[in-house]
Amino acid sequence: MKARKVIAEMDPYVPGRSQEEIIQEFGVKKEDIIKLGSNENPFGPSKKTIVAVEEEIKNINRYPESDLRVLQEELANYAGVKPSQIIIGGDGADEVIEDLAKTFIDPDDEFIVPMPSYMYYEYLFKQYGAKPVHAKWDLNENKLDVQSILDLINEKTKMIFLCSPNNPTGTLASKEDIKTIANVSEDILVVIDEAYFEFAGVTNIDLLDEFSNIFIIRTMSKAMGLAGARIGYGISSQEIIDYIYRIKPVFSLTRLSYVAALATLRDKDYIKKSIEDGIASREYLYQELCKIDSLEVFPSNSNFILFGVKETGFTAAELTRKLMSRGMIVRDCTSFKGVGEYGIRISICTQEDNERFISILKEVIS
Amino acid sequence: MKARKVIAEMDPYVPGRSQEEIIQEFGVKKEDIIKLGSNENPFGPSKKTIVAVEEEIKNINRYPESDLRVLQEELANYAGVKPSQIIIGGDGADEVIEDLAKTFIDPDDEFIVPMPSYMYYEYLFKQYGAKPVHAKWDLNENKLDVQSILDLINEKTKMIFLCSPNNPTGTLASKEDIKTIANVSEDILVVIDEAYFEFAGVTNIDLLDEFSNIFIIRTMSKAMGLAGARIGYGISSQEIIDYIYRIKPVFSLTRLSYVAALATLRDKDYIKKSIEDGIASREYLYQELCKIDSLEVFPSNSNFILFGVKETGFTAAELTRKLMSRGMIVRDCTSFKGVGEYGIRISICTQEDNERFISILKEVIS
Repeated sequence: MKARKVIAEMDPYVPGRSQEEIIQEFGVKKEDIIKLGSNENPFGPSKKTIVAVEEEIKNINRYPESDLRVLQEELANYAGVKPSQIIIGGDGADEVIEDLAKTFIDPDDEFIVPMPSYMYYEYLFKQYGAKPVHAKWDLNENKLDVQSILDLINEKTKMIFLCSPNNPTGTLASKEDIKTIANVSEDILVVIDEAYFEFAGVTNIDLLDEFSNIFIIRTMSKAMGLAGARIGYGISSQEIIDYIYRIKPVFSLTRLSYVAALATLRDKDYIKKSIEDGIASREYLYQELCKIDSLEVFPSNSNFILFGVKETGFTAAELTRKLMSRGMIVRDCTSFKGVGEYGIRISICTQEDNERFISILKEVIS
Repeated sequence: MKARKVIAEMDPYVPGRSQEEIIQEFGVKKEDIIKLGSNENPFGPSKKTIVAVEEEIKNINRYPESDLRVLQEELANYAGVKPSQIIIGGDGADEVIEDLAKTFIDPDDEFIVPMPSYMYYEYLFKQYGAKPVHAKWDLNENKLDVQSILDLINEKTKMIFLCSPNNPTGTLASKEDIKTIANVSEDILVVIDEAYFEFAGVTNIDLLDEFSNIFIIRTMSKAMGLAGARIGYGISSQEIIDYIYRIKPVFSLTRLSYVAALATLRDKDYIKKSIEDGIASREYLYQELCKIDSLEVFPSNSNFILFGVKETGFTAAELTRKLMSRGMIVRDCTSFKGVGEYGIRISICTQEDNERFISILKEVIS
């Protein structure tokens, strides 16, 4: 059996290393590990969510309902749109991104991503035969180089991805820049990934009234504390959402993820505190990192911080290994195109873990 | 924004009706509903699985591990193959079916399905531009019409789907017929959907030693009692599995589904009893349905039974509505191409529910 040409030419995906592997390779104890690598919510899920899931477990022999209307309504309410503008993904935002490829991408279409940014857009879209075109996120000013996108738009351009706040750089694409891009052609879909918007307090939902070619991606993996439950959603015009419903996997959201999503959205106090604590954690880490002279720290509107380590004398890969051997799982950003060899990204943690991390980081680079 | 041509021409998916809708439309009480429509496991999940999930809930703020090795090993052990021959789907067997399309299907490829059979193959493969070609499942003898498949194979044929036991007809494709088909060309993948194999006690795993072009689909939604957790797996040669790993969604299996899968596979007593009770339930239903003169009952090796209702004077749609108004959710099979207007499928239930269903069925058609 031969795979499709585009698949046969793809590199196998190399997954991140499991906690177990790190325990084995570096001989660290499980209780000494601090996870700073995946931009998760360190404060745990909502207590009401835990109760809701516990009550539902006995029903997991039954299929999920295919009709997710109640969850659509809650998400619409949270986002300030109509339920018919919402599509839900059962494999997190990744499923929503793939839905976009399936609905709109023909082989040889082009999509533009300013680099560095989230790499999974490219991983998914290449499977559908689309060609990635790399624009630029200006690392010197930590802002989108909007002209670099405008220069690359041509008749093959089908989508433009803007992650805002951008992963791994942490800052926002400005609303003015987004409007400039969306104005180029209504046949080009501008996809704004707002996975981290809660930590910035800025959304582009309002642009949906003005533009028919904007699609917003969201996730419950970050502020909502549900990364392990794989719940994402997309927001756009009803026309675009209706198209996507034609191909959306019907049962991809598990029964337990469904009740977890509902319970979390209804726990407004949890969401508020999760965001407040996340921002406080980020600000603490930012201040502490800035005190270390050999680091180049990037401001962040998100739940993670990128910093350059060139002046420590280590590459990001070297420093990552040193930190991992002490149980600190950080993200070496060398694999993000456009970051170079010296970028490390860390996620927010609890205050106790933040302090321990900063202390170990200082030891390692001193 | 224009959707791809193949998507714009697709009909929107019409999901099955939710329990809530049925409660509202027919005014039945929730406690009076018996679910016979979805071929689920009526006996509930393993108690050990419930405990395992309860212990994991506090961690759902963390992403799933991308490395599913331990689960691969357990599934390989269960299936009697090597772990490298296993691919796991986080949206049930449906995800594995879609993986096959993504890996192997180019636009205008053809795939053959004997009708009637599971309709989701077609729903998914059409999205990838493939053309469905319908062979025949002989309803008179309730067996595969192998010649009808051989007659349709041509140079465009990329895959042939054989659901065994076949949904909705209930019986097996014979191993001899499968070998005849697999022998035609090693460039045609013969996909054997063994979602229900535990209830037949027959697998085609042994053919993997003989043929490089066989792919077996399995699910944990039936005998394993985990339909709501969306866990499927595929078994084939390592070469084919390696190709699929290049495109497989990386995090699609939730943390809770992962621990549920492991705990269930390790609870051998639960699996044994679940299969035994399922077969006993099917045999009871078969005997009781056969006693009703106006029904044409199809023998089954699965956890469901198809019966024809022509002589009751009702169509399947009419009788389904009547049964639903009494809280009995059965499957009107009119939407399965090739069944016609008179087929209803019911799933196994607990003995108490079986007796109530048979009693209500008799009332409704008398």
